[in-house]
Amino acid sequence: MFTFERNERDLKHCIYDPGFNEDSAKYYEGLLTQGNGYMHVRASFEEGLKSVKQDEEYDRKPANVTLEKHKKQASKWGTYIPGVVGAHPYLFTEIVNLPFFMAANFSVKGEELDMEKSNIAGYERYLDLRDATLVRNFVWTTKDGLKLKMEYLRFLSLSQKHLAFSEIKITALSGEGDLYFESGIDARVRTNGFNHFEYLIFSHDDDSVGVRVGTNGKKSVVMRAKLFTSEPIDIATKQDKSRIDYVGVKHLKKGESFVLHKVICATSDCDNEEGDALERNREYLSGIKFSDLEEAFISHKKAWLQKWIDSEILIEGDERAEKALRFSTYHLLRSDNEENENVAICAKGYAGEAYCGRYFWDTEINMLPFFIHTNPKAAKSLLMFRYNTLEGAKRNALAYGYKGARYPWESSVSGEEECACWQYADHEIHVTADIIYAVMHYVKATGDYEFIKNYAIDIMVETARYWCDRVDYKNGEYVLLSVMGPDEYLPMTNNNVYTNNMVRFALKTTLSCIDKLKEEGSWDEIKDRLHVTQEELWEFSKVANGIKVSFDKESHVIMQCDGFEDFADLDFDKLWPDRSKCFGTFISQEKNYRSKALKQADILEMMMLFPKEFSKSQIEENYDYYEPITTHDSSLSAAVHGIMAAKIGRIDEAEAFLQRVIDIDLDPDKKGAEEGIHIANCGGLWQLVVYGFAGMNSALWEDEIKFTPNLPKNWQKVIIPITWHGVKKRYVISQD
Amino acid sequence: MFTFERNERDLKHCIYDPGFNEDSAKYYEGLLTQGNGYMHVRASFEEGLKSVKQDEEYDRKPANVTLEKHKKQASKWGTYIPGVVGAHPYLFTEIVNLPFFMAANFSVKGEELDMEKSNIAGYERYLDLRDATLVRNFVWTTKDGLKLKMEYLRFLSLSQKHLAFSEIKITALSGEGDLYFESGIDARVRTNGFNHFEYLIFSHDDDSVGVRVGTNGKKSVVMRAKLFTSEPIDIATKQDKSRIDYVGVKHLKKGESFVLHKVICATSDCDNEEGDALERNREYLSGIKFSDLEEAFISHKKAWLQKWIDSEILIEGDERAEKALRFSTYHLLRSDNEENENVAICAKGYAGEAYCGRYFWDTEINMLPFFIHTNPKAAKSLLMFRYNTLEGAKRNALAYGYKGARYPWESSVSGEEECACWQYADHEIHVTADIIYAVMHYVKATGDYEFIKNYAIDIMVETARYWCDRVDYKNGEYVLLSVMGPDEYLPMTNNNVYTNNMVRFALKTTLSCIDKLKEEGSWDEIKDRLHVTQEELWEFSKVANGIKVSFDKESHVIMQCDGFEDFADLDFDKLWPDRSKCFGTFISQEKNYRSKALKQADILEMMMLFPKEFSKSQIEENYDYYEPITTHDSSLSAAVHGIMAAKIGRIDEAEAFLQRVIDIDLDPDKKGAEEGIHIANCGGLWQLVVYGFAGMNSALWEDEIKFTPNLPKNWQKVIIPITWHGVKKRYVISQD
Repeated sequence: MFTFERNERDLKHCIYDPGFNEDSAKYYEGLLTQGNGYMHVRASFEEGLKSVKQDEEYDRKPANVTLEKHKKQASKWGTYIPGVVGAHPYLFTEIVNLPFFMAANFSVKGEELDMEKSNIAGYERYLDLRDATLVRNFVWTTKDGLKLKMEYLRFLSLSQKHLAFSEIKITALSGEGDLYFESGIDARVRTNGFNHFEYLIFSHDDDSVGVRVGTNGKKSVVMRAKLFTSEPIDIATKQDKSRIDYVGVKHLKKGESFVLHKVICATSDCDNEEGDALERNREYLSGIKFSDLEEAFISHKKAWLQKWIDSEILIEGDERAEKALRFSTYHLLRSDNEENENVAICAKGYAGEAYCGRYFWDTEINMLPFFIHTNPKAAKSLLMFRYNTLEGAKRNALAYGYKGARYPWESSVSGEEECACWQYADHEIHVTADIIYAVMHYVKATGDYEFIKNYAIDIMVETARYWCDRVDYKNGEYVLLSVMGPDEYLPMTNNNVYTNNMVRFALKTTLSCIDKLKEEGSWDEIKDRLHVTQEELWEFSKVANGIKVSFDKESHVIMQCDGFEDFADLDFDKLWPDRSKCFGTFISQEKNYRSKALKQADILEMMMLFPKEFSKSQIEENYDYYEPITTHDSSLSAAVHGIMAAKIGRIDEAEAFLQRVIDIDLDPDKKGAEEGIHIANCGGLWQLVVYGFAGMNSALWEDEIKFTPNLPKNWQKVIIPITWHGVKKRYVISQD
Repeated sequence: MFTFERNERDLKHCIYDPGFNEDSAKYYEGLLTQGNGYMHVRASFEEGLKSVKQDEEYDRKPANVTLEKHKKQASKWGTYIPGVVGAHPYLFTEIVNLPFFMAANFSVKGEELDMEKSNIAGYERYLDLRDATLVRNFVWTTKDGLKLKMEYLRFLSLSQKHLAFSEIKITALSGEGDLYFESGIDARVRTNGFNHFEYLIFSHDDDSVGVRVGTNGKKSVVMRAKLFTSEPIDIATKQDKSRIDYVGVKHLKKGESFVLHKVICATSDCDNEEGDALERNREYLSGIKFSDLEEAFISHKKAWLQKWIDSEILIEGDERAEKALRFSTYHLLRSDNEENENVAICAKGYAGEAYCGRYFWDTEINMLPFFIHTNPKAAKSLLMFRYNTLEGAKRNALAYGYKGARYPWESSVSGEEECACWQYADHEIHVTADIIYAVMHYVKATGDYEFIKNYAIDIMVETARYWCDRVDYKNGEYVLLSVMGPDEYLPMTNNNVYTNNMVRFALKTTLSCIDKLKEEGSWDEIKDRLHVTQEELWEFSKVANGIKVSFDKESHVIMQCDGFEDFADLDFDKLWPDRSKCFGTFISQEKNYRSKALKQADILEMMMLFPKEFSKSQIEENYDYYEPITTHDSSLSAAVHGIMAAKIGRIDEAEAFLQRVIDIDLDPDKKGAEEGIHIANCGGLWQLVVYGFAGMNSALWEDEIKFTPNLPKNWQKVIIPITWHGVKKRYVISQD
């Protein structure tokens, strides 16, 4: 009787769900999300929870997501294919939650298996990070006295990205009876309470059952499934208007086992592949025979093994940190689809719907360094997403009344602004410059200078045009008025230093890239294609050199914007009685917006990104000024502060931030992963270990790799695989 | 054959609809709205427009109302009882559009009367301002060759406020045939596209037909109608799930006439009267006999006559201005219900749904002076609305984390904040101080000092508590950070001078009122009741004396907020090609919010309200600085600028503003009244004539009435009825 070969169980490599509990079920669904870049499935039980209706409709309105109270529900199914988006009445477009293809239900004499109501013993569940398999085992004793050992394993193939596999082995431990099963595809789902499905066409043939889903984004998705059983039994198909199943009955006696293998294939109109989604689906699925399963699993495991070889960091002396880093690395690897340059990594790592599947600056600033140094092809693909959405960014600039291209604060696949809260959409403009920073980071780290000529120069010229139109000229300087920096708790400030400095970097980089292209002789063609005039270049140069940036080598504490001193001082001890909760939950937005209470510290973020420009004492002074007034309500904040604390040798503080970083998703009390993974924080953890504790220099600023370690006392050794200028190496950093 | 006695037609007193046109139908519906304080009905045709569905549902989402594009529809029925509100999914609570009780339809051989499709000749329609009657006359020739003269007259009784009357006289001019009619109450209506009706219970008895409407605000409204015909014919009733009618057929031959009289009674649970709405409704309506109609009309006319005696201004030499003022006065008189202290006057004068029936600072600052000087009882009633919503204002302060009471930017009947756009709700806080200004204006003008002791002191103490909690202490001064002044194009500024100065006034006024109450010996009781401590009084005093107010007698141009110079300068000629449209439609909100482009000028508004504090040259300098950068996108702006232009003797400019003020609702090309009347601008026009051109002093600042006229050249004489310190007088202002 074939079953997939289980790994040896290993706490180091597995994330455990400690036991079913309806309060934490939704958290583990997010935490243990599986994916292969192409598609993603939350770790919901195959049989669902009977008490939860997955297709309940409700209005999710635009809100400040950090502080938003999401709908209370014990379980939330989530099945996503990046790129498959649909229009929402208030939230622009959002990623569409697709039918749940892992669905499988069991009953004995009409008694349905349900984690909440059934008599369950010996429950264990874990996600094995080594090969991204989700395992669940338990014993179900029915009212009729039948005792069934249930063993589940499922994975989304990393080597055959349209395929997913589900194995369920049932063994009768005692008693005897008929086990009725339904295994299929369940379309009774909604996205943020909204129905994006315009049609559902169910069908079945000799080979498979399936559904074609038409979304209100005018794209269709095809999901088909075939079933193999460990021994031949009568199988029928059953369908209603929102679900299709294979159904059957197996009589089991004590000691007997039975295995169901389901293979699922998902294709869509957004796959960037030739051919109709249905035809491709048939092609990928129809050839799969029962005898192929073993090989499919092996090739999947090999693909994961290669990923881990390229990216797994080992930390001797800190198992918790090492495991957290493995968890973060897993989600980064899972979330990325290097084959598709029309999508990037959404803010929740395709593990939930909190940010509607949108793309933020996090991709470039928080996640990209990991990919630059572990998989440059993936890094390039992420940047190509920005290149491919340049037309959207141009429409976006135009909509605001500007020339050139303005990348959106929240990008969907079109590149147009989709943030439904105007204070972010209108004012958090630094993303447009961050992208240039990321491009140069990638180019410098990989040596792929062709990327500039072939792609990035278009982004550079168009965004430079935007900046030159966005600035105002005041008192002999170019200024950026009414800007929200990374610190989102001050929405409309003048000359946000982070932003102005990043814009200066972007414009100077653009000009120096143009100079290089001139030297190479490739500029003339580009200039003509982009209609760049000499006047424009002068303009770029004037703004690059004349933009107000209020610090220099002599600066002590740098004010994050003009008039920062004028904001109100707060009594944090009085206002913030319970530090386990966001500061933002204790203060009205109105009071917050006029006070010195940072969501994250712009100045420290800038110092991290521009390490050559600031001395250690400057970092210390600014750290001491800003950290006490920083709430760290942003999940991006802790990693940055940890890195800067490590850089100035404050290892205890850095370690405290490390714990915060880990807890953001992994603390079972916080339940941070309920609505998805804080994927930028996953990249932040990698950076905290690599740039912070191991002290690696940034490839943007230096050609040679170098480590200046600041290891925590109990860390004996850190082993880091790094790709630098095309060379993969493993670096061992130790205390001495 | 009884019909209501028509007034002599008089262009001076009538607002004419120049002829049916589907582009302007909605405009005239708003412009000619009738009301009697208790209830209001837009001037929609009795038979509706067949092409327009009044119960179409759509989503009206929160938006900047000034720039909002409202739903395009040729006609919008509107029937409102102030106080009857219901919950909207995105807009908090809003006034509920109630069933249209003027509904009456006619057909001949199945051919329905419809202004768009029927053969209509000799159409005329006008609202007679003298007695608020709406008259429509035309000749309808049916396909069958029957030629019918149709004469409509309707009014909402000012003397019996629950009653409305509709008279329709039909005369056959040629031909012969059966006229079928339906006359009743039509509940096929929505409010801003939303259905607020939880139930509709239709019923009929020997005496009347009617409906009980249950709103989702848990209040019910009863509307009943009875019909009298000029001669006895068979009348039946007809009802479906959303309309009830009297129906009948009248055979008409050339020369014959027939009259339908409908009397409608409306009552609600919000009437501030004892007894069930249905019982009261029966009581008010059942006694009405056909023979009572004449007397009902006479008493209605008398009531209007008295209103006009108290408030009608005559302008010799400027018929257009006089008529516009009569129009504005009419809508102010109609909108006010002095009997009900639980409602005020909503921003659209209950003539449309644009501002959801909400109450703004406009009531106190723009409308109240008219009532103070024409009907002090009504003025008091408007202020009592604020007293009666003090508990809501306290909940509102608490919701923001403050002590005391914070009046909402947009108030519904509860006093809680209902503005759906946070930038206004959170930051436009001056309303809370404006109310104290209005209270003192009323008290000084009427001599009703008891009002302070009995009511206003509670408002004063609670709002003072709020201010003391809202200020921050910076560099030896109390400051108000992140504030939107009346100029809503700068949403988050520090120390908005208008606001800070008004807060200083409010606190100083509070302290001096407390001193007077101490002298009188009534403070102790109040102090105990409101739990005022000595520390609080010190705090009030500290803030009153220490709040930053950046001007004095020596100031030249006063910056409207800290750092006003730092906002961007705009090239208006380039950005604003078509001055007939709002500036805001040519610029993104983002760019607007960082630029010196005022919606209205805070500094001039302040100078108008505090005339003693500024010299003529100060007004001139500030007028010259601000007017060129003021877009007047706010309908409140033109009147203020007109007054200030008149005050500095720039009569040509003042006259130009007068035209703008008049055009806001009365220009048939602008169609400003489509979604309701700009009722604050109506008050503004009265102020422009009284304070601006006639140059009356403010009763807040001087005890004796005095006029310093600045009359336009062609104005020979202005006659103004003014109540001052309880004495009604008519003042004649002439050129010399």
